[in-house]
Amino acid sequence: MQSKSNRKKIVTIGGGTGSFMVLSGLKKYDFDLTAIVSMSDDGGSTGILRDEMGVLPPGDMRQCLVALSESPKIMREIFNYRFENGSLGGHNLGNLLLSAMEKITGSSQQSLKEIGDILKIRGRVMPVSLEPSNLKIDLKNGLTLLGEDKINHNYALDTIGIKEISLDPTPTANPEAIEAILNADIIILGPGNFFCSLIPNLLIPKISGAIGKSHAKLIYIANLVNKRGHTNTFSLDTYIQWIQKYLKHRQIDFVIYNTQKPSPALLKKYHREGAEWLELKYTKTKNSHLSHYPTIIQADLLKKTFYKPTPGDHISSTRSFIRHDGDKLAKLIKQIL
Amino acid sequence: MQSKSNRKKIVTIGGGTGSFMVLSGLKKYDFDLTAIVSMSDDGGSTGILRDEMGVLPPGDMRQCLVALSESPKIMREIFNYRFENGSLGGHNLGNLLLSAMEKITGSSQQSLKEIGDILKIRGRVMPVSLEPSNLKIDLKNGLTLLGEDKINHNYALDTIGIKEISLDPTPTANPEAIEAILNADIIILGPGNFFCSLIPNLLIPKISGAIGKSHAKLIYIANLVNKRGHTNTFSLDTYIQWIQKYLKHRQIDFVIYNTQKPSPALLKKYHREGAEWLELKYTKTKNSHLSHYPTIIQADLLKKTFYKPTPGDHISSTRSFIRHDGDKLAKLIKQIL
Repeated sequence: MQSKSNRKKIVTIGGGTGSFMVLSGLKKYDFDLTAIVSMSDDGGSTGILRDEMGVLPPGDMRQCLVALSESPKIMREIFNYRFENGSLGGHNLGNLLLSAMEKITGSSQQSLKEIGDILKIRGRVMPVSLEPSNLKIDLKNGLTLLGEDKINHNYALDTIGIKEISLDPTPTANPEAIEAILNADIIILGPGNFFCSLIPNLLIPKISGAIGKSHAKLIYIANLVNKRGHTNTFSLDTYIQWIQKYLKHRQIDFVIYNTQKPSPALLKKYHREGAEWLELKYTKTKNSHLSHYPTIIQADLLKKTFYKPTPGDHISSTRSFIRHDGDKLAKLIKQIL
Repeated sequence: MQSKSNRKKIVTIGGGTGSFMVLSGLKKYDFDLTAIVSMSDDGGSTGILRDEMGVLPPGDMRQCLVALSESPKIMREIFNYRFENGSLGGHNLGNLLLSAMEKITGSSQQSLKEIGDILKIRGRVMPVSLEPSNLKIDLKNGLTLLGEDKINHNYALDTIGIKEISLDPTPTANPEAIEAILNADIIILGPGNFFCSLIPNLLIPKISGAIGKSHAKLIYIANLVNKRGHTNTFSLDTYIQWIQKYLKHRQIDFVIYNTQKPSPALLKKYHREGAEWLELKYTKTKNSHLSHYPTIIQADLLKKTFYKPTPGDHISSTRSFIRHDGDKLAKLIKQIL
């Protein structure tokens, strides 16, 4: 027990794919891991289950569970299996399992514990709130976008500009998530879909408040590339400013930033597949409002071997070419500790 | 290993619910259990998955897997969970798991092995054939009923009468099922849906052939009640004659027959719920064609506590009031050994 309590406590805050990469790397070390996951996803299989069954959106929790799983490959494969055709087409088996377990146990917390046991996960996955919510973006032209799925595929965030981001309704923070944040040694924000997966967590006052109070080292892992229509014109500094907008009483300590450019061939493939990502530029704005600027840790964090989606995999082919290397990330984070 | 090979080998042949009861009782003893399951089910969730995904009908395999499972209750509950509403309404999570596993592994045998490991089953479940087939009944008036689901809900079997039963196409017998039958110490036919779950297994020539060659004791567990529209007028003898029609070279050694009548209140409830079952009468026809008549073992085999379906349970309420007691059945079978 002594050794267990001495383990460094790491909390990741984000959504699905981004957290998946970090957690996959971190689970190889003896850390006490907690993945806090945003609950505003309303697209695809997740959106249907949320609507029809009244459960918490399962998709991002599923990805974090798989990332932390130490069960045989076949278990992770079955959990990630996506039905391709027919009436089940697009549904993901892990999402169905999570939803059914939530209905059986009557609690998302208990459901995650049970599924965590089945998948033999090393750590904990917890929803940021115990009820789902809708992401809402008021644009500068007076229009409002409601729902993460709609926002995710809308370019207006960039072309028109964001006036305000909120959750509708503002959900109650999960008390266990608050506790994990307050007790953390390291809190990791990102990487991942910035406005749809990371920011929604910070929109819950008690979550950003807990990060503010926490004595943990606060790390932001910047994305490898910008997202078309959302953050095309962003420099690293703009991302930091957006995060700090919601973390008023606490500044980011470290930013982890990849310096390795993908090969031109890979970038070309990315575009050909209709990818929505653009290279992220590291430019510090002249009049940064930050009182102290975070330490920027620059390193080659690019995954060298291409991610090959298996049939039924959860990561769509268009998003799968340029990735963080989870092992490199984990190594860096260990050094910060 | 020595003790393992000394264990008595019991093979059950049937469908879902009936085999479930027998297996649930038998798994409490140290038997080497094999459940052989018919592959002609085409109704409900099973029928949709069979059509859309091109997999073997999973429903009956699922029930046998759950019966043999020694994993915690929550695992069996999640495996039996039935989605109630929306686009997934009627689908059963265990059916989805089996279908997805068959697609991932590319083989129903491997899928059953993997799912069996997850559920920690005591024994083996195997499809009677490695391809699905359709149950076909030619009626005496010249009409043909095709498909188990259609046949199951049709009263014409009784009112018009059956001319011939076949499988379309006749599937190839599963070699592992043949081997299990040939090596068995006891083969148990039934209980369960007579024309839709038991007889289809015997329609595969190499299966009935293997039963014919086997030195196992052959037991038929008679149903508690007749099925309306299918077997209303049957006496025990009629059932035996139907089975022997497909087992030409081998006669049933023992028939297990329940003598305990359910309470009038329970029978009333059964009718009120639109139940399709009628009391089975034990009448030996005068001119039985059998050269030697099987030993009839009469006993109280009725389940005393009513089966209470849990939410998402696989056994519908209308069929759940009158049941065999798996423990009583197992005890009897042990005595026959």
